[in-house]
Amino acid sequence: MMFRYVMSEIAEKVDCAAATAGIVAAGRDFYRRGWVLGTSGNFSAVLEVDPRRVLITRSGADKGALTEQDFLTVDGTGAVVEGMGRPSAETALHLAIVSATGAGAVMHTHSVSSTVFSQKEGKVKSIAITGYEMLKGLSGVQSHTHRESLPILDNSQDYPALAGEVEKLQLRERGSHGFLLRAHGLYTWGVDVNEARRHTEILEFLIEVMRWQS
Amino acid sequence: MMFRYVMSEIAEKVDCAAATAGIVAAGRDFYRRGWVLGTSGNFSAVLEVDPRRVLITRSGADKGALTEQDFLTVDGTGAVVEGMGRPSAETALHLAIVSATGAGAVMHTHSVSSTVFSQKEGKVKSIAITGYEMLKGLSGVQSHTHRESLPILDNSQDYPALAGEVEKLQLRERGSHGFLLRAHGLYTWGVDVNEARRHTEILEFLIEVMRWQS
Amino acid sequence: MMFRYVMSEIAEKVDCAAATAGIVAAGRDFYRRGWVLGTSGNFSAVLEVDPRRVLITRSGADKGALTEQDFLTVDGTGAVVEGMGRPSAETALHLAIVSATGAGAVMHTHSVSSTVFSQKEGKVKSIAITGYEMLKGLSGVQSHTHRESLPILDNSQDYPALAGEVEKLQLRERGSHGFLLRAHGLYTWGVDVNEARRHTEILEFLIEVMRWQS
Amino acid sequence: MMFRYVMSEIAEKVDCAAATAGIVAAGRDFYRRGWVLGTSGNFSAVLEVDPRRVLITRSGADKGALTEQDFLTVDGTGAVVEGMGRPSAETALHLAIVSATGAGAVMHTHSVSSTVFSQKEGKVKSIAITGYEMLKGLSGVQSHTHRESLPILDNSQDYPALAGEVEKLQLRERGSHGFLLRAHGLYTWGVDVNEARRHTEILEFLIEVMRWQS
Repeated sequence: MMFRYVMSEIAEKVDCAAATAGIVAAGRDFYRRGWVLGTSGNFSAVLEVDPRRVLITRSGADKGALTEQDFLTVDGTGAVVEGMGRPSAETALHLAIVSATGAGAVMHTHSVSSTVFSQKEGKVKSIAITGYEMLKGLSGVQSHTHRESLPILDNSQDYPALAGEVEKLQLRERGSHGFLLRAHGLYTWGVDVNEARRHTEILEFLIEVMRWQS
Repeated sequence: MMFRYVMSEIAEKVDCAAATAGIVAAGRDFYRRGWVLGTSGNFSAVLEVDPRRVLITRSGADKGALTEQDFLTVDGTGAVVEGMGRPSAETALHLAIVSATGAGAVMHTHSVSSTVFSQKEGKVKSIAITGYEMLKGLSGVQSHTHRESLPILDNSQDYPALAGEVEKLQLRERGSHGFLLRAHGLYTWGVDVNEARRHTEILEFLIEVMRWQS
Repeated sequence: MMFRYVMSEIAEKVDCAAATAGIVAAGRDFYRRGWVLGTSGNFSAVLEVDPRRVLITRSGADKGALTEQDFLTVDGTGAVVEGMGRPSAETALHLAIVSATGAGAVMHTHSVSSTVFSQKEGKVKSIAITGYEMLKGLSGVQSHTHRESLPILDNSQDYPALAGEVEKLQLRERGSHGFLLRAHGLYTWGVDVNEARRHTEILEFLIEVMRWQS
Repeated sequence: MMFRYVMSEIAEKVDCAAATAGIVAAGRDFYRRGWVLGTSGNFSAVLEVDPRRVLITRSGADKGALTEQDFLTVDGTGAVVEGMGRPSAETALHLAIVSATGAGAVMHTHSVSSTVFSQKEGKVKSIAITGYEMLKGLSGVQSHTHRESLPILDNSQDYPALAGEVEKLQLRERGSHGFLLRAHGLYTWGVDVNEARRHTEILEFLIEVMRWQS
């Protein structure tokens, strides 16, 4: 399965206030579930394709209680175009994902399950997820027999290098909906904030299931 | 134990607004518990017996934040009689359960516990649940010594075929209050939305207990 | 350690509206935690010592959404003095606990942890809990070195007989703050609703800890 | 890594009402997560450095529903300067931590994970935590390769003696952000209430991860 979001379609329907509100609501819920404790995690949404404008949470914001002041707009190089504070240190990963997949929104969570699971799997570079009905919650998936490829990257503090690794994953060709950073967390994305939130819930669910089965 | 809900009694007391409100409240709570993440799950209630009219959640609705617009009415063949959008892909299962049991409401959840448990049990076609006080929360059960038969069906995307499998389960003769779809989730039902919600809570509880004991 | 609540002191400070409100709040919180799912559990408070008047939740009430209509008053024999509906089937146990301990409030919960733990322990008649700081949340306990005796009774549907078993436990002489019914749940009590709620939280915590350590 | 909060900087920005509000909000959230059940846990904030004035929760307060009446002010010896009731029995530990680290706020929680984990580790005097991205949520930590030293002290009811043990831990020299009391719970601290809350979330997260991996 190969898919790519069509950026021109995304851009036309993006409403900055709605994207902000969607991220605020998702952050509140993910915090309650323990997926973004201690200001961890970060979220973004594409506002314009060309020139690229991406809304992203500022570094150090409490994801359970985001306000408008916790958002910045960056351009395609990660430079701040609007807003106060420093953009998330992982902005380069968000931008690399948007480029590689054409996604309209990217979400990153740190759950106990993804941390435990990605550690357990040792040096493996990718996990296949198959046989679960919940896979159908991922965009374009029609059956539990779908074989989802979930790459696992080794963690690093060199974000430009990690962004290069993300490009090499060929997320589009694999048809992947997310990847794990080992002992760090999950990245997923979608055509918009709603879909990215749904993909977060689906992948966190599947990772928790696999954590107990592996 | 053999029991069957008496449909004429059900029909007389059904109030569409109350059924909708009961499903909305159940969805919000189940979402919080992680039982219907990522728009998974679906819920229905019989509004009229003859001609059959069944209220059911539309496909793709967020079960934690249902509104009136997320409900449709279908007839006994699954054709939409009222409302916008597409009915749940699993409408055929809801209708098969209503026919087989005379239930007034059907609920379907996807929990981590039911996914892990139904996978663990391998090729088994049914699980006996006995010895737990919580069994008494199931309609008609008087003692923890009751032996509840919980069928496990292999998952499939062929819903008409699955509906045929559901008919063959002889749910009425077994006195079952629910069944599992392997690596998919739980179906349960009740005389009305309140009872179906109670059965969901009871069976999810028992499945979680058995998950840790098996 | 031997202790007994002094009933005359209890009776003087009991306020029916406050006891009701305290139980409603506890029920809401316990439901959220999954300790009283599916209308399971029941709660009581002594309103008068002589003649005995005990406020108790009615059978089948949803413990997460109790209202004033869900409470009854019974006398020392369990006969209804005030209110509509049927008192909890386990009223005899509440009355036996009040008589044996002099408690002013009794709470009964059904958690996954107490169900799993009480099953694991096989035929054991009592568990010693010691070494945990949380023990100090139990009335009269001054140190984590305290040795709490937590009896485990086999479950039964014969509540008068179970009430007789409770009397034989000599809860006062043991200085126990609760007991388990196997594959059923926890009973605990306190001088008032607040203390009974605190004891529920402490014992559910300790049982969850022991569940993972045994 | 060695660090020490600069007290004069702390003192200037402390606002008693804001510290109280921050602790109330943290208490509500920690209670919901099951980290301060049954009135367990206690929280403090430095209001003045010289003469020392420390705001601390009173003994026996319900941490999920703190009000202004649940706070006291103590001096550097633990004597009550303002407020009603008895200060937490563990006030000496809070004061020892403030002296040893220069922290502006101290938080103490009792979670199932820290209880189970600290018991599992037997006689070990300290645990090294390394390799987790979440470590970066701890003040001054720049990389997941950081090696955090988490001391484990044996529990005791002799709080002055325990305070002496805390002094010997050389928390400043180790660069530690918290320590465990065995079968009791977690202490952590920060430059202010917000940072202490973030450190609680980070360390509880890491302890839960290690609980399942050890």
